Amino acid sequence: MANCIFCGVAAGTVAAHVVHDSPEAVAFLDRHPVARGHVMVIPRTHAANVLELDDAAVGGLFRAVKEVVRKVNDALRPAAFHVGWNHGKGAGQHVFHLHVHVLPRFHEGGRGVQMLGEGAGRVDLGEIAEAIRRA
Amino acid sequence: MANCIFCGVAAGTVAAHVVHDSPEAVAFLDRHPVARGHVMVIPRTHAANVLELDDAAVGGLFRAVKEVVRKVNDALRPAAFHVGWNHGKGAGQHVFHLHVHVLPRFHEGGRGVQMLGEGAGRVDLGEIAEAIRRA
Repeated sequence: MANCIFCGVAAGTVAAHVVHDSPEAVAFLDRHPVARGHVMVIPRTHAANVLELDDAAVGGLFRAVKEVVRKVNDALRPAAFHVGWNHGKGAGQHVFHLHVHVLPRFHEGGRGVQMLGEGAGRVDLGEIAEAIRRA
Repeated sequence: MANCIFCGVAAGTVAAHVVHDSPEAVAFLDRHPVARGHVMVIPRTHAANVLELDDAAVGGLFRAVKEVVRKVNDALRPAAFHVGWNHGKGAGQHVFHLHVHVLPRFHEGGRGVQMLGEGAGRVDLGEIAEAIRRA
């Protein structure tokens, strides 16, 4: 997509420290790393988020994520990883081309991805499950 | 795997609020939700983490994640989502059967997944990229 910086990275017209690439995906270092070895993995085809990504392209993207975890693990030997993405402006997504963050952790600690929850309050799990199931 | 609680959920021998299932994956509500509509998506086949998950099984798991995002979006109309997982004890993983958290966000805010970074200090991006690329 014109004017999409990550489409530029995928096309090679925007400079990036690429660490892995495949027919379906490209992985490169975040320029503003929040962890040593912070990598972002993107699909080559433009998709703002996972809902816009064709089912056929999903496997290739996440096989690349797996390969990046393997490579970072072998190269840097972190203690653990967080892997995830922000979907939508309200979740902190700034570039609207799906990008999966691979965040190595060299020190133990933290509650992980659950830290990002804004709280559930009192919920009736049965009712919520039924609503999601039917959707 | 014997004694794996999530294998039990996948097999139907451990009760759970299942919201989606496919030949490759099962999705169910977290019993201790950190957000309204907090869902976990697991592969049917036991894998402690993504490195243990067969390449052939990766697509099916993440197509299920996509479908769960769609369903939660349609059912609950959140503003946005965080999606991700903890890989390894040091990252807060407690059940050693890969589980991807889908966390709807109803209020804007937060820096997202990047909040989980432990900091990069001063890094030479070129050097790190080269090490990962070669791994």
